[in-house]
Amino acid sequence: MKLILCLASSPLLWALIAQEAPRRPAAEPPILSPEVHPDRRVTFRLRGPQVREVRLNANWWAGEKNFARNEEGLWSLTIGPLEPEIYNYTYSIDGVTTIDPHNPAVKTGVRAASSILEVPSDSPAVYDLRDVPHGSVHIRYYRSRAIGGVRRVHVYTPPGYPAGNKRYPVLYLLHGAGDDDSGWMLIGRANLILDNLIAEGRAPEMLVIMPFGHVAGLADPRTGWEEQNRLIERDLLEDLIPFVESAYRVRREAASRAIAGLSMGGGQAARIGLGNLDLFGWVGLFSAAVRQPSATQPLQRFLAEPERSNRALRLLWIGCGKDDFLIKPNEEFVALLASRGIRHTWRLTDGDHSWPVWRRYLAELLPLLFR
Amino acid sequence: MKLILCLASSPLLWALIAQEAPRRPAAEPPILSPEVHPDRRVTFRLRGPQVREVRLNANWWAGEKNFARNEEGLWSLTIGPLEPEIYNYTYSIDGVTTIDPHNPAVKTGVRAASSILEVPSDSPAVYDLRDVPHGSVHIRYYRSRAIGGVRRVHVYTPPGYPAGNKRYPVLYLLHGAGDDDSGWMLIGRANLILDNLIAEGRAPEMLVIMPFGHVAGLADPRTGWEEQNRLIERDLLEDLIPFVESAYRVRREAASRAIAGLSMGGGQAARIGLGNLDLFGWVGLFSAAVRQPSATQPLQRFLAEPERSNRALRLLWIGCGKDDFLIKPNEEFVALLASRGIRHTWRLTDGDHSWPVWRRYLAELLPLLFR
Repeated sequence: MKLILCLASSPLLWALIAQEAPRRPAAEPPILSPEVHPDRRVTFRLRGPQVREVRLNANWWAGEKNFARNEEGLWSLTIGPLEPEIYNYTYSIDGVTTIDPHNPAVKTGVRAASSILEVPSDSPAVYDLRDVPHGSVHIRYYRSRAIGGVRRVHVYTPPGYPAGNKRYPVLYLLHGAGDDDSGWMLIGRANLILDNLIAEGRAPEMLVIMPFGHVAGLADPRTGWEEQNRLIERDLLEDLIPFVESAYRVRREAASRAIAGLSMGGGQAARIGLGNLDLFGWVGLFSAAVRQPSATQPLQRFLAEPERSNRALRLLWIGCGKDDFLIKPNEEFVALLASRGIRHTWRLTDGDHSWPVWRRYLAELLPLLFR
Repeated sequence: MKLILCLASSPLLWALIAQEAPRRPAAEPPILSPEVHPDRRVTFRLRGPQVREVRLNANWWAGEKNFARNEEGLWSLTIGPLEPEIYNYTYSIDGVTTIDPHNPAVKTGVRAASSILEVPSDSPAVYDLRDVPHGSVHIRYYRSRAIGGVRRVHVYTPPGYPAGNKRYPVLYLLHGAGDDDSGWMLIGRANLILDNLIAEGRAPEMLVIMPFGHVAGLADPRTGWEEQNRLIERDLLEDLIPFVESAYRVRREAASRAIAGLSMGGGQAARIGLGNLDLFGWVGLFSAAVRQPSATQPLQRFLAEPERSNRALRLLWIGCGKDDFLIKPNEEFVALLASRGIRHTWRLTDGDHSWPVWRRYLAELLPLLFR
């Protein structure tokens, strides 16, 4: 008691105790956007007294997209109800496409950012953070002689790793043209999907390697993908796999090594996986860019020797949404496989070229691997 | 040769080889923004034919901030030359504050996003990715009984970890109110700063634990920080430290345990570090929210028993920028320490309440720790 009185009598300490919390210069009250209502309708908002037009950009929503303005210049739009899912969207503000400025959940990558809307479901989704044993995601750097310089890679290790002496199978998981090596974790929730499926006994324990799939100056499909995909293959085979196998306890035979990817990364997975059957026993192609010559030219032996391919491959899993702009080359690729008698699993699903599809594909593929 | 001809005669494969790369529906040519010129002037751009006004929001730039419009509706503003640094900025588009829509480099957190401008220097900065041995950043989840539920934490491990049997000192590094547990890595570049300083022999090898400093519903300094800071302390002492010490080879004595934080996290570091001298031997406060009662009320014994405090503390490092809105409470706190005879290092520096300051402070603090 004496102590407290003594200290409280100090003007300096008093200033530390009795002043209010530090405040930034007075700001306008915060805007809640998006607001998910209990019935899963969603309200988007924008404070924009000087703005003349606000629209929602969201190809997953076919209804009204124009915001209405109230007298104070607060714009709003309510849509739905929506299915539980993680959606991406942007605003068009006086014709400029940008994120929802009031929403801190932002998807970043190598292209323009977008905003994230998560509509929760009553029962936990396969990508939700749950109270199960969790693996780790390691952010690592490795030297690439193939490309030159130092490159970043995300590595998922399952719960319990690195205890014990077990060696694990390993999935190389490649991102799309708009993303970077954090995309499969931050947007794809690959780590949480693995945690949940492993906890349920539905997927085997494995490591997942998520490299960066672009090469500086070559990220444009109109000009640079040929050379980029060639370099990405060399980097993966000559630099990344040796790095992974020196830094982690992983199995090294093709039956314990898988590769999958989405869009641009699906093209890379086709090229690298199907072109190196001595190294990869499992291949997954999600909305894959299989019309890229750099993806398919290296597949000549794979296509020409179907018996060898069928003997080597444990699984070739191909998925594409009916509304995906890449549906036609995927259907052509599947028809080509069929005409050659090459075994594959073809999943023609609902959906377009977007992350909800790819999260579902990953959750569908993982239980099939390394069995 | 025969193989190639055979395959090339297949219409299906031909479609895979000879078609052009898949293209999205024709978009307008990309806008480069920001563009850093060789003389370190910077041009910002916005395509906005329907927009009436564009301004740059950047408290680090005192000059012209209004963009000019050309005949095609392309807005631009050139500023500088700028000092080499990583800057944050936003646009004001018809009065709406948002990111630069053409810049994929976005700082995210629990508040509104901002855009990132990096002006490189001729010689590598302490936060640059260099070709040196690299540590890892682990993204982990742990159960918190204090707060309830599962919480995410980022963990830096130095190059070479976990080889050998060495136990490492550990720094708990806390973020500010606008950030989350990824902030010190993504924006603060703490991992790269560590890598570089360790490679130069200027900082000891250590683990750095970067927890999430908010509690749902309590993140507003006007209403919830008292309870939040109390819970964050309990979580760190009762849940996070035990998790870290079970999962990583770290030393456990106070002389090998440091805590530092910026802004809100500086207030938490003061409360937790100076209030638990049996656990923490080193404390760093960067632009700290030391006027928060929740930060300073637990410090009564620390202030009342300066001899004990001086005996226990190896370092109390306090830094604040002259233009920081928290400069006054920091100066008052330092004066209070001086009046009590409590040893401390006080760095009154240039700068305001922003990441360039905190990166520099971290690089200045690390070489002093665990010596």
